[in-house]
Amino acid sequence: MFKKYNIIVVGAGHAGCEAAAAAANLGSSVLLITMNMGVIAQMSCNPAIGGVAKGQIVREIDAMGGYTGIIADKSTIQFRMLNKSKGPAMWSPRSQNDRMRFAEEWRLTLESLPNLDMWQDTVKEIIVEGGKAKGVITSLGIRIESDAVVLTNGTFLNGIIHIGEKKIGGGRTAEKAATGLTEQLVSLGFESGRMKTGTPPRIDGRSLNYSVMEEQWGDENPGRFSYTNVGVPSEQRCCWITYTNDKVHDVLKTGFDRSPMFTGRIKGLGPRYCPSIEDKINRFAERDRHQIFVEPEGFKTVEIYVNGFSTSLPEDVQLKALQLIPGFENAKMYRPGYAIEYDFFPPMQLDLTLETQRIKHLFFAGQINGTTGYEEAAAQGFVAGVNAHQRITDQHELLLKRSESYIGVLIDDLVTKGTEEPYRMFTSRAEHRLLLRQDNADVRLTPLAYKLGLVSEERLDLVNKKIRNADLLVSYMREHSVSTDQMNPVLLELGSSELAQKTRLFSVLSRPQVNILDLAKASVEFSTFLNTFDADTIEQAEIKVKYDSYFEKEMEIVNKMKKMEDKEINPDFDYKSLSSLSIEAREKLLKVKPRTLGQASRISGVSPSDISVLMVHMS
Amino acid sequence: MFKKYNIIVVGAGHAGCEAAAAAANLGSSVLLITMNMGVIAQMSCNPAIGGVAKGQIVREIDAMGGYTGIIADKSTIQFRMLNKSKGPAMWSPRSQNDRMRFAEEWRLTLESLPNLDMWQDTVKEIIVEGGKAKGVITSLGIRIESDAVVLTNGTFLNGIIHIGEKKIGGGRTAEKAATGLTEQLVSLGFESGRMKTGTPPRIDGRSLNYSVMEEQWGDENPGRFSYTNVGVPSEQRCCWITYTNDKVHDVLKTGFDRSPMFTGRIKGLGPRYCPSIEDKINRFAERDRHQIFVEPEGFKTVEIYVNGFSTSLPEDVQLKALQLIPGFENAKMYRPGYAIEYDFFPPMQLDLTLETQRIKHLFFAGQINGTTGYEEAAAQGFVAGVNAHQRITDQHELLLKRSESYIGVLIDDLVTKGTEEPYRMFTSRAEHRLLLRQDNADVRLTPLAYKLGLVSEERLDLVNKKIRNADLLVSYMREHSVSTDQMNPVLLELGSSELAQKTRLFSVLSRPQVNILDLAKASVEFSTFLNTFDADTIEQAEIKVKYDSYFEKEMEIVNKMKKMEDKEINPDFDYKSLSSLSIEAREKLLKVKPRTLGQASRISGVSPSDISVLMVHMS
Repeated sequence: MFKKYNIIVVGAGHAGCEAAAAAANLGSSVLLITMNMGVIAQMSCNPAIGGVAKGQIVREIDAMGGYTGIIADKSTIQFRMLNKSKGPAMWSPRSQNDRMRFAEEWRLTLESLPNLDMWQDTVKEIIVEGGKAKGVITSLGIRIESDAVVLTNGTFLNGIIHIGEKKIGGGRTAEKAATGLTEQLVSLGFESGRMKTGTPPRIDGRSLNYSVMEEQWGDENPGRFSYTNVGVPSEQRCCWITYTNDKVHDVLKTGFDRSPMFTGRIKGLGPRYCPSIEDKINRFAERDRHQIFVEPEGFKTVEIYVNGFSTSLPEDVQLKALQLIPGFENAKMYRPGYAIEYDFFPPMQLDLTLETQRIKHLFFAGQINGTTGYEEAAAQGFVAGVNAHQRITDQHELLLKRSESYIGVLIDDLVTKGTEEPYRMFTSRAEHRLLLRQDNADVRLTPLAYKLGLVSEERLDLVNKKIRNADLLVSYMREHSVSTDQMNPVLLELGSSELAQKTRLFSVLSRPQVNILDLAKASVEFSTFLNTFDADTIEQAEIKVKYDSYFEKEMEIVNKMKKMEDKEINPDFDYKSLSSLSIEAREKLLKVKPRTLGQASRISGVSPSDISVLMVHMS
Repeated sequence: MFKKYNIIVVGAGHAGCEAAAAAANLGSSVLLITMNMGVIAQMSCNPAIGGVAKGQIVREIDAMGGYTGIIADKSTIQFRMLNKSKGPAMWSPRSQNDRMRFAEEWRLTLESLPNLDMWQDTVKEIIVEGGKAKGVITSLGIRIESDAVVLTNGTFLNGIIHIGEKKIGGGRTAEKAATGLTEQLVSLGFESGRMKTGTPPRIDGRSLNYSVMEEQWGDENPGRFSYTNVGVPSEQRCCWITYTNDKVHDVLKTGFDRSPMFTGRIKGLGPRYCPSIEDKINRFAERDRHQIFVEPEGFKTVEIYVNGFSTSLPEDVQLKALQLIPGFENAKMYRPGYAIEYDFFPPMQLDLTLETQRIKHLFFAGQINGTTGYEEAAAQGFVAGVNAHQRITDQHELLLKRSESYIGVLIDDLVTKGTEEPYRMFTSRAEHRLLLRQDNADVRLTPLAYKLGLVSEERLDLVNKKIRNADLLVSYMREHSVSTDQMNPVLLELGSSELAQKTRLFSVLSRPQVNILDLAKASVEFSTFLNTFDADTIEQAEIKVKYDSYFEKEMEIVNKMKKMEDKEINPDFDYKSLSSLSIEAREKLLKVKPRTLGQASRISGVSPSDISVLMVHMS
């Protein structure tokens, strides 16, 4: 009953939505299949986007024409730029979001894309012919053909929800699990594993006593994720901070003998850096309190998300412990926290394009690859969607380098090293993080996206203008000086030593205490010039002046490694014949099929001497 | 883990929401338990409220302090007063609604009620002690105690979804069914049955060609449901009308051998007056076309509801047939229509308060009682919620008479006559429908609701003011005349015969061609007087002038029957000892336990001579 589509995307979470949108925007006819059209783009866990390293990913998706940033901006109830006191590589945008608005905006965005159709159903089977994915078969028994398939099944594959000793089949609270697909993929030779994640209880905010908690407001001048002109929130909601204590921990411990985590009922590994509260008090027994972020679920709702209190302990233990937290004495729960176990497919089975090695034209993105986080999922979805389109139209792949994006780090890590626990992005995972900043994701990636047809020429022009104008501003500061009369009063106020003579603006701005607006205070002429630029350009110029020497050093390192990173290896390279490779290296190289020598060097079990062997052989 | 509540309401559909809100507003502590807090107050079928007889019900709920009317008003995308060309008893408000907004407004309303808590879980069992409901046990194994329980399980009890030959367990598309509760109630002696209902496919509105359909706009001056001042929609969306044809019917017929309706797989009876399209072409084989209303699902979404095309035929047949409808040539489906079978409890097991006869303090409302329709469900929910509160606080019951409300008709019909197919309200079911109008639901019911504490004194004052002012206006028209010079030019224009002499305004307005604004045109003095009243009052006065003689005749009938209707029968009346009653009458009277002689007279199998026997015995 369906025409053949170019691309079928299975699942409409953060990965599926970006995948479907990207492929449709590139010109593929796309069918997005979801089990429930009423719950597209759900924030299954915390109602927030971004944060450290994750905020950078969202900016990168946005710079390439994805939607997560725009939709987060449209649904922001509070915005904060984290780490503003640190260097610009650590600045990380984060928003609290209205859960319902976020889902609605995604739904409306998908509805607005001309090449995108939607269908509510559950995919039971991938049609595979001649080693290629050719479509899907649904639980209604419908056969839908396509040139490529992108799987973004999230936590739904054989999902099992745990609360204390209770087990409920489901992909998310009150939603059905998806069965059959894992089994088919395993029968096709895929290796699958189990992971687990969890979520805290939801609370009736009317039952909390906020007066004993710390208020946490958003930035006074809130920013945004998108480089496009979505606008910033006109009003923001307050969040709060409170803490657990010994009594809370003691009550939680009374549930440990019924905890699915500790009794071995849950086999899958959970996210190390997003542990449950019982994990935290178990692993960090010395800590007498843990921070709890009290986050509203939207602009109007009283529902509260208890960030930091993820748990799968029995619901009565959850409530009893919660009520010992300051401000939660009379807390009423809407629903308990829970853990969920689900199938994933170890990502070393993928190519860097997110196409599976085993079945051509089949792509995996999101939690199915063993990641955690909306941002990580959305990024993979975007890349998979783009590459599915590029693949079936025989066009250039979207391969992002580790030195140009967090998304490149994410995918390279997954494909090259695999993961045994839910993979989350951190700044520390990116060796070139000085270059991968939230302020320059557009500079890094928009030109590339433009080449692939993902963003308009107007958008590219805006980025080029930003670059040009920032350079102009920096040049001006290199060329123009400020007199001691002008500058010293300002420096005095800032506690910075006085100038002895007329000095270039650039040098003054290099001082850590001085920011670009201080220069404007000192010099009317500069102030007038500065006012002709927009805030993004000014920020960009300021960062350049203050940090360019660091960035240049980092670029030198990147360039040194460029030879290795750019040295391509034929995917059909005959590692078996290279007897001088270690046996482990041969196996791993065959498994990962690295695209470059650089990627090969990061495979665990491939030693520098193995790399030398490869280099010698290839040259 | 829970405190004891006064009242637990199970299910958060149209019945459950009204029940919980009403009981909470009366002062009971209420726990509303729903399987999924993300889908509260779903419009499972058409995105519309009201219509013939149903619109009157919504006005009645509103007049007593319920919320369905307010929430419909807040989410209206199109409003029409149906039957405006007929007498005022037939005028029926109907709105198309934004499905998401409707659900969101209900959720926010529930969140705003101080006595109302919510909990996401599935109720598996009612706690019954000493013949009384004392709480519930949930699928998480939680025991929650209460003084009363209201069940509003909708289509979820052992729900099975049918599409062609496929069967899927579920309470609604993509939602789980509820199991266990029917079985417990049956083990307690309740009789249960099966019913079925259905819903049409949902369509991507971008795939339709509206230019070949008839436009259907809302009223130029849209009205509203609520007597409170919610306001009317500032913008409205267009709907469209198109038709099936022989080719559509022929294609549908190709699926009949796989139809769950015709192959006997569905056992339950469906709603006679809301038949599936296959039912229509089967039952009305002589008709070569059926009307299809093309209704948007919201303000912004492109999703379309295909009103009139409810079907459980195989999905490929659905699509093929749809695409033969003018304007649907390229229709893309979001999801197929389906039929759903579910358990209900024949409502003769209830008292007029909606408390079950078998288990005290247990109330049933909505589809569980064999009704269909959001409005019928909401009305029952409201009554059950009120009566649960009144019952546990030993206060007056809310018993609505057939002569004062459609809700009275609805409940009396259900409890006295039962129903074997989904019960839907019609004006023809109300013998006193002349009195049960949309314009006077406040006059009929707000004083009663005030006595029960359901509405504020301010609100009662407004109704009394409306009555007083309408009377004032009518008196004025009785007392004041209009000259031939003033009136005749206007009458000429209206095609009404000229006045021969000065005539009372009242007499002129009694003419069918003349409306009250025509009088204002003729007389500046009257126009000035009229302008001091609001639109509702003016409408009320006009209706009084034109129809009061009919209303009075109807009231005479009501008064004649009042003796019977007011003659109460002790619920423990010993029918068995009255050997002069027919055996059937004795059985039925024992089963229904009628509250009044009037109710007894409506029981099928109770003859006029049985009533005479009762009358003799009681006097």
